[in-house]
Amino acid sequence: MDKLLVVKFGGTSVGSIERIKNAARKVIDKVQQGYKVVVVSSAMAGETDRLINLAKEIDPLPPERELDMLVSTGEQQAIALFAMVLNSMGYPAVSLCGWQVPIITDSVHTKARVRKIGVQRLKNILKEGYIPVVAGFQGVTEDWEITTLGRGGSDLTAVALAYALGADCEIYTDVEGVFTADPRIVPSARKIARISYEEMLEMASLGAKVMQARSVEFAMKYNVRIHVRSSFSDQEGTWIVPEEEVMEKVAVRAITLETKESRITVVRVPDRPGIAYRIFKALGDAHIVVDMIVQNVSHQGYTDLSFTVNKADAPRAEEIVRKVAQEIGAQEVVRDDNVAKVSVVGIGMKSSYGTAAKMFEVLYKNNINIMAISTSEIKISCLIDQKYGELAVRELHSAFVEEGEEIKIVNDGT
Amino acid sequence: MDKLLVVKFGGTSVGSIERIKNAARKVIDKVQQGYKVVVVSSAMAGETDRLINLAKEIDPLPPERELDMLVSTGEQQAIALFAMVLNSMGYPAVSLCGWQVPIITDSVHTKARVRKIGVQRLKNILKEGYIPVVAGFQGVTEDWEITTLGRGGSDLTAVALAYALGADCEIYTDVEGVFTADPRIVPSARKIARISYEEMLEMASLGAKVMQARSVEFAMKYNVRIHVRSSFSDQEGTWIVPEEEVMEKVAVRAITLETKESRITVVRVPDRPGIAYRIFKALGDAHIVVDMIVQNVSHQGYTDLSFTVNKADAPRAEEIVRKVAQEIGAQEVVRDDNVAKVSVVGIGMKSSYGTAAKMFEVLYKNNINIMAISTSEIKISCLIDQKYGELAVRELHSAFVEEGEEIKIVNDGT
Repeated sequence: MDKLLVVKFGGTSVGSIERIKNAARKVIDKVQQGYKVVVVSSAMAGETDRLINLAKEIDPLPPERELDMLVSTGEQQAIALFAMVLNSMGYPAVSLCGWQVPIITDSVHTKARVRKIGVQRLKNILKEGYIPVVAGFQGVTEDWEITTLGRGGSDLTAVALAYALGADCEIYTDVEGVFTADPRIVPSARKIARISYEEMLEMASLGAKVMQARSVEFAMKYNVRIHVRSSFSDQEGTWIVPEEEVMEKVAVRAITLETKESRITVVRVPDRPGIAYRIFKALGDAHIVVDMIVQNVSHQGYTDLSFTVNKADAPRAEEIVRKVAQEIGAQEVVRDDNVAKVSVVGIGMKSSYGTAAKMFEVLYKNNINIMAISTSEIKISCLIDQKYGELAVRELHSAFVEEGEEIKIVNDGT
Repeated sequence: MDKLLVVKFGGTSVGSIERIKNAARKVIDKVQQGYKVVVVSSAMAGETDRLINLAKEIDPLPPERELDMLVSTGEQQAIALFAMVLNSMGYPAVSLCGWQVPIITDSVHTKARVRKIGVQRLKNILKEGYIPVVAGFQGVTEDWEITTLGRGGSDLTAVALAYALGADCEIYTDVEGVFTADPRIVPSARKIARISYEEMLEMASLGAKVMQARSVEFAMKYNVRIHVRSSFSDQEGTWIVPEEEVMEKVAVRAITLETKESRITVVRVPDRPGIAYRIFKALGDAHIVVDMIVQNVSHQGYTDLSFTVNKADAPRAEEIVRKVAQEIGAQEVVRDDNVAKVSVVGIGMKSSYGTAAKMFEVLYKNNINIMAISTSEIKISCLIDQKYGELAVRELHSAFVEEGEEIKIVNDGT
């Protein structure tokens, strides 16, 4: 059998019949290069939102089972049209809903997890010379209920199918790949040829919108090689691969900026055991995800405690913390929405020194105050005043990426 | 178990969220009357056409399997929204696609025939106190391919489910029921309380658009009682029932007008065996359905042969017959698009005399020439000049229905 490839198109890539034709040509290119291709498609751009709005006209919180029933039609329409386009171009194709593959999931509607994938039908279709076009984002429970996989679900479908079939995975999207920084902020930002799962995962959580963390995690767990690229050009994009396949040795791979967080500070908290527990237990009970947490050393038995949460959760978090603050005798609670988190990411950091110091130096030299710091093995994040966010990214990009070690662009040769 | 009822809504009855709410109230009324209700819904008005147009943008003749995949999403959206509406009104509901019921069909895409219906899941859902909302028009093959049932398919779904569950069937549509004549032509036309399957079948083939002949045939075969009524009023509609349940004794139930046919005449055909065969064999080979056929007695070895076909097929039929005419030495072929078929329909005709004579008398008194006549056990049709069509219907309605035997309106008491 020829080499297998799973090729996924996002909503903008199939947003009109013209665009589906463009996407189909990409598929045909691959077939002509000798690949057996499995296509995964999202719904046409806008369709899922249209359906969700119809549902919300009825009920702000419609039953999730029915919501899945409704929105899964978006992908079903896209795959039928995609298969028609391939057929009309002379390449016989067969569309398949999640339940027809089948892609078996648990029964948690609107955010189901894939449990099992049947590949026999796909293999038969490929063997008969047809191109299977699979609906992304959707699955089916053992009880024949339609489920959807939640945000980024179509990417997950593609990565999971690639794993199940032992194939590589191409994700066609509306950007050229993963960049060393957001090109709208840093015009000299460069496309990254290869990036490790770990780096991509950090970047996804740090605000880079190319892929959802969930699909990258899955790919990492099962060693699926992903090629993220634009459906509107023929350029190579970015390969997301195991660390050992990333041959460029750089300490810092990319700079990210996240402006969607707020900082909440509990001022003059009595410094005794159990205080942090009470605050973060209350937030956890309210399903609020806390990101950075900073507690300074105490003075005369009092300390300040800061943390960041998603801006959308911030007013609710503030309210919850205000109650706890009263109970524990803190002085006040202050919320700051004008913060930004700037981060440097790179697996090279594991084995290099001085990255943190250099980052702090760059910020200091630009008179940017650091409000909080958090680190992992492969990233350093600093919380700063939001108005300095873009400046910080540019300066860090210049210091680490442009003036840093030479970055060798490696073509993967497939 | 309470009495079961299958309730079907057409596309206009679910054409907007407001209309779905209206339809849901009809369902809830029935539940409050003590019925267990199974809902069948068509796609929202316009959606199926929108999808077919998208497909035709790609390919004037898209693969039928993919067309079924595409258009079946219309009903799926409608049932999800319908279930959400019922839920929001406090009546828990569960939507089901054809494959989830399952409604098993053969594999003739776009016009599949129902082979088998699984009722266990429906019964379980009803038992748990939920209202099942089933997608009309669609089924699934034994190989898990989505099929659709062709024109009038949602009615068929409803009738077939009613049969499978031993239930009566209510068809909600945008008309009040079946009338003694088209009320736009005959303002004094009356709604018929009860009509037999046979009469309804004749009327469906004669141009009455309330129900497709196919669903009536199915209902007749399996003795399913159908109540056709408007979703925009609370009036009783028309019951379509076995002949023995139609208690009113009238010779003529209704007058119909069909203006979609053309007449083709082969002039001066040599009158010898095999001529009619050659003409109608050629039309049959071209899949053209012939309706009325008239051949006069011959004069000096020649005769004229006329027949009617659907207007859409008429040019093609003329062309085919012209070729045959040449081969068999007929003088010429004449096509007339300005014809109308006016019919009187009623099971009472089986046991009454003089209906034909009275019909001819009415036409004669109005100076309307009869071009052709065809009869069945329960109907008489006359082909006339189209410009007299509406006049003929009014005069026949007046003679047979208004001045005819007293029509007793019988309420069914359910």
